[in-house]
Amino acid sequence: MPRPITATIHIDAMQHNLARAKACAPGAQVWAVLKANGYGHGLERAMRGFAAADGLALIEPDNAVRLRELGWTGPLLLLEGPFDAADIDMMAQYDVNGAIHSEAQLALLEAACPARPLNVHLKMNTGMNRLGFMPHDFAAAHARLRALPHVAQITLMTHFANADEAAHPRLSLHEQVRRFRAGSEGLPGPVSLANSAGALKIPELGDELVSNWIRPGIMLYGGTPGGQSAQAFGLKPAMTLASELIGIQEIGAGDCVGYGSRFQADGPMRIGVVACGYADGYPRHAPQDTPVLVDGVRTRLVGRVSMDMLTVDVTNLPGARVGSRVVLWGEGMPIDEVAEASGTIGYELMCALAQRVRVVEG
Amino acid sequence: MPRPITATIHIDAMQHNLARAKACAPGAQVWAVLKANGYGHGLERAMRGFAAADGLALIEPDNAVRLRELGWTGPLLLLEGPFDAADIDMMAQYDVNGAIHSEAQLALLEAACPARPLNVHLKMNTGMNRLGFMPHDFAAAHARLRALPHVAQITLMTHFANADEAAHPRLSLHEQVRRFRAGSEGLPGPVSLANSAGALKIPELGDELVSNWIRPGIMLYGGTPGGQSAQAFGLKPAMTLASELIGIQEIGAGDCVGYGSRFQADGPMRIGVVACGYADGYPRHAPQDTPVLVDGVRTRLVGRVSMDMLTVDVTNLPGARVGSRVVLWGEGMPIDEVAEASGTIGYELMCALAQRVRVVEG
Repeated sequence: MPRPITATIHIDAMQHNLARAKACAPGAQVWAVLKANGYGHGLERAMRGFAAADGLALIEPDNAVRLRELGWTGPLLLLEGPFDAADIDMMAQYDVNGAIHSEAQLALLEAACPARPLNVHLKMNTGMNRLGFMPHDFAAAHARLRALPHVAQITLMTHFANADEAAHPRLSLHEQVRRFRAGSEGLPGPVSLANSAGALKIPELGDELVSNWIRPGIMLYGGTPGGQSAQAFGLKPAMTLASELIGIQEIGAGDCVGYGSRFQADGPMRIGVVACGYADGYPRHAPQDTPVLVDGVRTRLVGRVSMDMLTVDVTNLPGARVGSRVVLWGEGMPIDEVAEASGTIGYELMCALAQRVRVVEG
Repeated sequence: MPRPITATIHIDAMQHNLARAKACAPGAQVWAVLKANGYGHGLERAMRGFAAADGLALIEPDNAVRLRELGWTGPLLLLEGPFDAADIDMMAQYDVNGAIHSEAQLALLEAACPARPLNVHLKMNTGMNRLGFMPHDFAAAHARLRALPHVAQITLMTHFANADEAAHPRLSLHEQVRRFRAGSEGLPGPVSLANSAGALKIPELGDELVSNWIRPGIMLYGGTPGGQSAQAFGLKPAMTLASELIGIQEIGAGDCVGYGSRFQADGPMRIGVVACGYADGYPRHAPQDTPVLVDGVRTRLVGRVSMDMLTVDVTNLPGARVGSRVVLWGEGMPIDEVAEASGTIGYELMCALAQRVRVVEG
């Protein structure tokens, strides 16, 4: 009775990708990032897929509690830290680490009286200009944290803006590392720098990225953080989004397809109608010729993606019929290729998987 | 403990918008469309908002059952009809109307033996080239339906490709209506043609769009189907997506913001960091200068939207601080404006609202 669209989550691929992350940074411990519902793969499934991680990192306080309820006993980290005083109490109660990235959070922590000491990640803004203390304010923030009886360990953290393009002309990876070193000089504590892109660059950049903890995200789900394809990085897709043809139209020269009549045929064509639309999480931006697999054969999107359907060219697939299997991304069709065609990144597509899509494991 | 991002659903706006749809077509009955989880507003909330509709239409068979369980006793319509034989049994059991749009569905229905007769919507493909029988095949399909003892009423239906641009050079509204009339000539049964764009054009196009049922969707949620602004159509937003600032950065000339260092300041600026990212449903495509309200004042996006955060210019908002209210869309900030800036339509943004966003009514 559900529509024929299904997302298959490959737990074994998650395990494989985690092993790849560990292999990139043999000396480091790994926070597996499973924010945003495990990048759309499901929190509980991601927890199982990353059972071998040293810790799990996310941003949603309620999901940190959920992970404890699901039985995760290892370290947990809130990458954006507490949003309010109640979160600090929760962090103490459930033994959750949290970032401290702003004066407001620091003041919140100073005013708090948690039931037991907290481990915190003090975050430095080294050029991303999103969260974190400026390098010249970092030591003072660190001193204030050290003065608090309810703060136990302080890890030093920053986040890279351009780890996928280390030599970025506006802000290089090395410049961010340099700022981090300058701002944290002489301060004790473990260090956490690298996201997926950073982790994958460790072999090539060497000790510039040495840190005690890495924080891979996208690579664990089999998406590339940029630079090379996921396959070239040795990653396997953790999600396959597949559906079926629910209609076939035979059209002729001059006939159009879909909203806005954007596609116009210049000769006889067979159009397959797929039960997958933007309300399932497929990008409405996907243009003409975005690749799609029908019965295992690569073909192309034609016409506009609509809310519940999209249309593909099956002119050269005479066997295509109602019920033919269609792979939108995953096994046999890299999500990054669909993302690139649509002017976005695999991260967005994974996270956008809609609640109405049935999810199975396989 | 949840993150500060909240979607507020305005049930009264849904009621208002439904009344607008009815006023456009005084003689017609209204299928209120609540597929895709009520365009992201929640199935049960949409059911309440559209309690005054003559029927509810959707595409998800499981949600049709859910609506019955929630207490909806009026007509229900599956706009894509059954996906398999089990759906036909469900339609009989739960008294659900369904489209019949393909030879495969017709064969499925012919082979079925449902517990009681079904009401069906026979769909014609008048140029959208997505679902439906070609005009020249329509009468034969109709005859086959009439021959079935388990088919009660047959409604005649089509769908417009360009109702927002009636004089579309490739396929006009009038041409689709002409094909519909030609293909259905002499066939009995009620008629259902107009979606939101069609319904809103009835006053201007007159009886070209006369039909027994209209099927408004986007307009019921306060989004424009195109042509004019939602406000000009007299519609009210049914969803307000709001969050808070969770960080402020003071930056100087040459400093960059976010991934890819895409935004570079040409002088001193204050950057506000908003707890809302593409994994909440905000479009990653949103470019520089997309409008955002901070403390009720219109300002602009700067830098790339990231997974959990976006950054805005609060240089001229000296009162902006951590905790300041940010409206992404809804009351005071038309969703269509955000969509247009991002190269998409309000439909996509509503439907993409992520599960992790807390939803309240107000």
